[in-house]
Amino acid sequence: MDYKAAFRSAVDQIRDEGRYRVFADLKRQRGAFPRASWTRQDGSEREVVVWCSNDYLGQGQNPVVLDAMKAAVDAHGSGSGGTRNISGTNHDHVLLEQELADLHGKDAALLFTSGYVSNEATLSVVQKILPGLIIFSDELNHASMIAGIRNGGGPRKIFKHNDLAHLEELLAAAPADAPKLIAFESVYSMDGDIADIAGTIALAKKYGAMTYLDEVHAVGMYGPRGGGVAEREGLMGDIDIIEGTLGKAFGVMGGYITGDTEVIDAIRLMAAGFIFTTSLPPALVAGSLASVRWLKAHPEVREIHQERAATLKAMFKAAGLPVMENDSHIVPVLVGDPVHCKMISDMLLADHGVYVQPINYPTVPRGTERLRFTPTPFHSDEMMRKLVSAMEALWAHCNVARMGGYAA
Amino acid sequence: MDYKAAFRSAVDQIRDEGRYRVFADLKRQRGAFPRASWTRQDGSEREVVVWCSNDYLGQGQNPVVLDAMKAAVDAHGSGSGGTRNISGTNHDHVLLEQELADLHGKDAALLFTSGYVSNEATLSVVQKILPGLIIFSDELNHASMIAGIRNGGGPRKIFKHNDLAHLEELLAAAPADAPKLIAFESVYSMDGDIADIAGTIALAKKYGAMTYLDEVHAVGMYGPRGGGVAEREGLMGDIDIIEGTLGKAFGVMGGYITGDTEVIDAIRLMAAGFIFTTSLPPALVAGSLASVRWLKAHPEVREIHQERAATLKAMFKAAGLPVMENDSHIVPVLVGDPVHCKMISDMLLADHGVYVQPINYPTVPRGTERLRFTPTPFHSDEMMRKLVSAMEALWAHCNVARMGGYAA
Repeated sequence: MDYKAAFRSAVDQIRDEGRYRVFADLKRQRGAFPRASWTRQDGSEREVVVWCSNDYLGQGQNPVVLDAMKAAVDAHGSGSGGTRNISGTNHDHVLLEQELADLHGKDAALLFTSGYVSNEATLSVVQKILPGLIIFSDELNHASMIAGIRNGGGPRKIFKHNDLAHLEELLAAAPADAPKLIAFESVYSMDGDIADIAGTIALAKKYGAMTYLDEVHAVGMYGPRGGGVAEREGLMGDIDIIEGTLGKAFGVMGGYITGDTEVIDAIRLMAAGFIFTTSLPPALVAGSLASVRWLKAHPEVREIHQERAATLKAMFKAAGLPVMENDSHIVPVLVGDPVHCKMISDMLLADHGVYVQPINYPTVPRGTERLRFTPTPFHSDEMMRKLVSAMEALWAHCNVARMGGYAA
Repeated sequence: MDYKAAFRSAVDQIRDEGRYRVFADLKRQRGAFPRASWTRQDGSEREVVVWCSNDYLGQGQNPVVLDAMKAAVDAHGSGSGGTRNISGTNHDHVLLEQELADLHGKDAALLFTSGYVSNEATLSVVQKILPGLIIFSDELNHASMIAGIRNGGGPRKIFKHNDLAHLEELLAAAPADAPKLIAFESVYSMDGDIADIAGTIALAKKYGAMTYLDEVHAVGMYGPRGGGVAEREGLMGDIDIIEGTLGKAFGVMGGYITGDTEVIDAIRLMAAGFIFTTSLPPALVAGSLASVRWLKAHPEVREIHQERAATLKAMFKAAGLPVMENDSHIVPVLVGDPVHCKMISDMLLADHGVYVQPINYPTVPRGTERLRFTPTPFHSDEMMRKLVSAMEALWAHCNVARMGGYAA
C-alpha cells in the first residue's frame, strides 16, 4: 500500500481547493508590538504591522507579565516536570486557580494546557458524569467545543447561531427529565457578534439545563475587571461553567474552567485531557497570574481597546469597505471569495507591510471568506490610515464588492 | 434536576474507591533540583526530595535552557498571540521543527502544545486521511493515544502488551488490502519496559502496515544524540511517525511528531488539535530548542542517568524491596494495594521528606499499585541511602510483601 501517496493526495486536494496554508514566519518584537519582523521564504526580512493577533490588549509585551515570567524561570526553572498529580503542581498553579475563580465569582477553577483542551476535555467528560446528557450546541461553536461534544459520544442538538427560538424548539422537544447542557460562546471570534446570554440563561432555567459559556474572546476585555461579557452583564452567577483562555487577551498560553466546587472537582478527577498531560510551566502560570491581576485593575485598557476597534470600523466604513457589523472588538471585512481573500492578504503583506491572515473555509463558511482585523490599544491612528489606504487601493485593483451605497 | 448532586456523587464514588487525588503543592527550586519546597494544606512548608519527576535529566534547571527562555521573553514577549496560521508562527517554531526533524533523521516535524495533543490529534486525523484504516494498538498505550484512536472513530485492534505473536495474529486476520497502522511506545512509563521495535517493524513490513512510535519517555535519554530508543537501535528510518515530547527529558513543555514531508504536511493541514489552538510561546520554543541541541551534544548525561537508575535498583534489591524489573531508567516498586500505596507515599512525604506519588488505578491495573521512582543525574548516593532506609522502615511497618528470597 502506498501510504505516502495517500497523504500527498490529501494535501493536493487542499491545494486544489485554494486552502493550502503557508504560515507567516514572524519575529515578534517586545516593546514594538504590533510591529514584527516577517521572514520571507527566501530568508529576507521586512517589518510588518500585525493586524490579526489574538494578543488583543498587547499583554504579550506588558513588563509586568514578562518580569513575572522571568522571575519564575529564575525561581523554579523551565518546565513543571510532571502532570498535576505527579510532581507537576507548582504553588503558582494553586494561586492562579484561586485568582481565576475570583475573576468569575466562582468557587473553583481548573487549569488546562490550552483553551482547546479545556473545551474538549470538559465537554467530553461531562457526558460521563451525567449519563444521557443532551448537549445543545450553537452551530458556530469553536472546533474544540465540537470535538469535546463529539468525543463524549452522547446525544447532541445543534441550534442555529444565536437563535434562541430554535434553541427553545429543541429544548422543548427533548425529554423533560433528561439532563441537558447548553454550550455557547459570548463573543464569536470570526463574526465578532455577541450571544444573548440573559436569554440563554432564561431558557436554561425554563427547561432545567446547565449552561457552559466559552468566553475566550472576551476575558480580559469585557466587564469591570475583565471577567468577560457575563461579568459586564452581571450574569456570571447564572452560568454553571465559564471557560476562558490565558492565550489571548491575557497574552500567555493555557485554558481554564470555573464553576462550583463539586463540578470542578469531578472534572479534575475524571477528565483525561487534564489528568494525562504535563502541567503548564511555572513561567506561564506566573505570567498569567500577573496578567489577570493587572487587567483586573486596569479598566482603562478595555476602554481604549473598544475605542480603537470603533475607530477602525468607522474608517473602513467611510472608505466604503464592507465591514461585517458587530458589537465587539473584532473587525471582519467581507471578501466572499477564497482566491481574492488570499490574494489581497498576500499583497497587503508583500507590498504594504500589513499582515492580516485570510480567513477561508473551513474556519468560516464558503462564500463568507474575509479579512479579520483585531486592532489593539497599540494600533495608532497613523497605522490605521495606512491600512485603510492600502485596502482601498487593493479593493479597486481586485474589483471586490464594496458596501452598498458607500462607493462604486 | 440536581446537577450538583450528580457531580458530587461522581466525586464520592472516586473517594470511596480510595482514588481521590490531592495534588502535592510544590515549589521547585532552580539549582536545587531534585529538592523542592512542599506546602502542606495548613500553609506550612518543608523541604522534600522529588523522586517522581519526569524532568528526567534535570534540564528544567539547565542554565542553557533558562537563559534561552529569558532571552526569548526579552526579545519577543510572553505569548505567541495566535494559532500557527493566524499570526502565531514565531521564527523559533520553524527552527525547532527543523531541529526535531534532524534529531529523528526525518524530513519534517510538527509542534503541538503537548504530547497528549500530538498523539490525540495525529492518531485521530490519520483515520480521515486513510479511510478504512485499522489501527493496531498496544494495550498499555498512553491515554492520549487511546483518545486519538477512539476519537477517529475507525476500526481498532488491541494487542497484548509487547506481544508480537498476538499482534501478528491480529494483522494476519485483517483484510490484506486494508490500510493499517501499528501504534506503540518505546519505553512504557509505568512499567519501564521497552518494546521490541525491530520485531514490530518486521511485522509492519510483512503485513504492509505503517508504524507510529511514541518515544516520550525516551527522547533526550536514549540514542547517541538523544533521539530515543529507535535511534539507539538504528531503526528511526523504519518508523513512519515518531512522536515525542518537550515536557519530560527536555524539561520544558510541548509535543511533536516527525516523519516524511507529505505525512507531516497532511497532518498540519487537517488536524483540529493542531490548527485551532494558540501556538507555544516563544520562550518555551526557544528553551526547548536550546535543550534539544544541548542534549544532542552531551551523551555523558545519558550515561550518568542510566548509572543512577541502575544504582537505585541495586540498592532497592539489596534491601529486599520488590523492584519491578526492566531495562530502562524507571524504577517501579510494587505495593499491590491502593491503600497501602497511598499510605506509604504519605508517610514518606510527611516523615521522611521523600516525595513519590502513589500510582494507583486507573493509571495502572488494580493489584499492581506501585511507587514509581525516577532517579535523575542529580539524585546523589546520599539521597538514595536515605530513601532506601526510609522505605525499609515503612515496608516493615506496613508489612508489605518483599521480594522472594531476599528478605522476610
